[in-house]
Amino acid sequence: MRLIALSEVLPGEPVTNRDMAERFGLHERWLDSVTGNRTRYFCRPDSPTGVPKTTGDLATEAGEQALVRAGVDPAAIDFLVLSTASPDHLMPATVNLVADRLGLNDLPTFQLTSGCAGALQGLYTARALLASGLRRGLVIGADTCRNMLPPGDAVAQLRPAEMVNFAMFGDGGGAAVVEAGTQGPGLLVEHLFLRTVGKGRAPAQIVRWYGVAGAPQVPDAHGRTVREAMGEEDYKAIERHVPEAARAILDELVAVTGWRLPDVEHVLTPQLNGVMTERIRDYLGVGEQQAVSCVADTGNNGNALPFIQLNRALRRIRGGVGEGGRMLVATVESSKWVLAGMALRHRPEGGPDVG
Amino acid sequence: MRLIALSEVLPGEPVTNRDMAERFGLHERWLDSVTGNRTRYFCRPDSPTGVPKTTGDLATEAGEQALVRAGVDPAAIDFLVLSTASPDHLMPATVNLVADRLGLNDLPTFQLTSGCAGALQGLYTARALLASGLRRGLVIGADTCRNMLPPGDAVAQLRPAEMVNFAMFGDGGGAAVVEAGTQGPGLLVEHLFLRTVGKGRAPAQIVRWYGVAGAPQVPDAHGRTVREAMGEEDYKAIERHVPEAARAILDELVAVTGWRLPDVEHVLTPQLNGVMTERIRDYLGVGEQQAVSCVADTGNNGNALPFIQLNRALRRIRGGVGEGGRMLVATVESSKWVLAGMALRHRPEGGPDVG
Repeated sequence: MRLIALSEVLPGEPVTNRDMAERFGLHERWLDSVTGNRTRYFCRPDSPTGVPKTTGDLATEAGEQALVRAGVDPAAIDFLVLSTASPDHLMPATVNLVADRLGLNDLPTFQLTSGCAGALQGLYTARALLASGLRRGLVIGADTCRNMLPPGDAVAQLRPAEMVNFAMFGDGGGAAVVEAGTQGPGLLVEHLFLRTVGKGRAPAQIVRWYGVAGAPQVPDAHGRTVREAMGEEDYKAIERHVPEAARAILDELVAVTGWRLPDVEHVLTPQLNGVMTERIRDYLGVGEQQAVSCVADTGNNGNALPFIQLNRALRRIRGGVGEGGRMLVATVESSKWVLAGMALRHRPEGGPDVG
Repeated sequence: MRLIALSEVLPGEPVTNRDMAERFGLHERWLDSVTGNRTRYFCRPDSPTGVPKTTGDLATEAGEQALVRAGVDPAAIDFLVLSTASPDHLMPATVNLVADRLGLNDLPTFQLTSGCAGALQGLYTARALLASGLRRGLVIGADTCRNMLPPGDAVAQLRPAEMVNFAMFGDGGGAAVVEAGTQGPGLLVEHLFLRTVGKGRAPAQIVRWYGVAGAPQVPDAHGRTVREAMGEEDYKAIERHVPEAARAILDELVAVTGWRLPDVEHVLTPQLNGVMTERIRDYLGVGEQQAVSCVADTGNNGNALPFIQLNRALRRIRGGVGEGGRMLVATVESSKWVLAGMALRHRPEGGPDVG
């Protein structure tokens, strides 16, 4: 399988830590120091026309850009995969509304419920579909994490476990057009694995959904009745386990490809937030020049983020950096511990277009 | 690909139309005549221990039964797919909580957001994963449609478009263990296709989800402010288009297999509700003896239902009915028009176990 084009979409203007302080009453210095994220992007219902407002908007825009860059007509696409944790509805699947908007019809579509490993879950699914005889597909990741949190004026009342999410996450979309076969330009996937390893382990992240009536009343730690939180996170477990999971992924990729880690031009490490990403990079022994990171600018936008990293890695190559073109990707979904790794090599002839 | 074992799970006791009348204030005769459903099953938070209460419970129970019937150890399963429209959370994906409970670990897992065609979407995904080199997988469908509707005492205040859902749907789970290759016992998949055809067509079913605050206030048809409905359905569009979609699916299956429809022992037709299912069967020219229907007893339990039909078709064969063992399956997801069809043939030697 080759990735023949990539895209990234970030909705509207970047939201700075000062914006967050002014708009939501968060502490600017706390955001700077705890998350290390400088900006993120949020879908807003009041955005101007043309600015993505929903997961479907982000996915459509990302898909469209990838198709244009690949120079591929929608009629030549054999399947569509969308990975997301934040669908616009339970039904219809957002992927099928996106298919309509992209002019994709008469093809199998799949929406994967996934988180930070979702981009690679989508690509793993795509590789299987290509193995079964299909020739070309579109794989999209998109999330509107903003939808998982309360409206603006209620943010300051969030409990710490929810506040952490709000501080780390952002909205975005990304996509890849993939083709069967090893010949031809693009990013050639040399190895790709996907593994859920959550047996006996507590979820480190939970995001709930509710019906018409909203969250039920539950007792809090002090016995008071409060509304059940929509999301919660065991940030300590994530801090402890994601770095070692990332190391295990890179170890396996290095063993399979025979590449030496210091020789790999582009290493795409897990992107929880700016602070954690730097800590993980250091722990893995990945050089600053090798690392392709974006979370400090984009926020953690879940299923979109590895596509954005891939897009930026390609942009580097186009810019003359790391032209050897080897890439290793490590993604970890901590909600119930999904590990995914991918090794790619850039094939330059007429190579893929990037934005 | 072969289906080597099947299962079905229905939570608790059947809920009759009289029960529905007493419990929710619905009209018993309206339920009888409009839906043709006699019973359905609902997950209830107050069910006794051991009775499934959630989508995850239904999926776990269905998966476990299928594994036991296949005589396959969890360690011999290479991948897990869950299709559902009603996940227990947005994150973690319910499939990963189910994997943990089934003792499945170190394997790729996939949760598809899907509706009435979801069982075949799961099997289509499984077939691709087998084509990519995996050998054996577990494919589950489960839904708790009850979760998409308001609590008991609010049912009588539902608007008609929501009431129709409540009257038609039910909760359930089903599963199949699948194996690569055409040799060996089981249901051999001779043809399987999946096609989203929603381009330019309005969704005929919408199910929303909400955050902590619940549904927003919106104007109703009379300009009054009401809570946005969680679900709505264009029942007329479904009545009009599902029968012709089912015919197109059967036509294609018959053309590919070379089977004559009157010779096919088991025809699994779309199961919207008892009345529609009979109408569609008649429209398709499928004989009463050929049709494998369950919705009048189970309610429409979405992603579970085709697994239940398959299980019951196998039970018929085991009981000496239709031992030629050819099966055609037609499923239609009307929320954004997904068509899926499958042709199977029973391979009797030591055949699959059914419940």
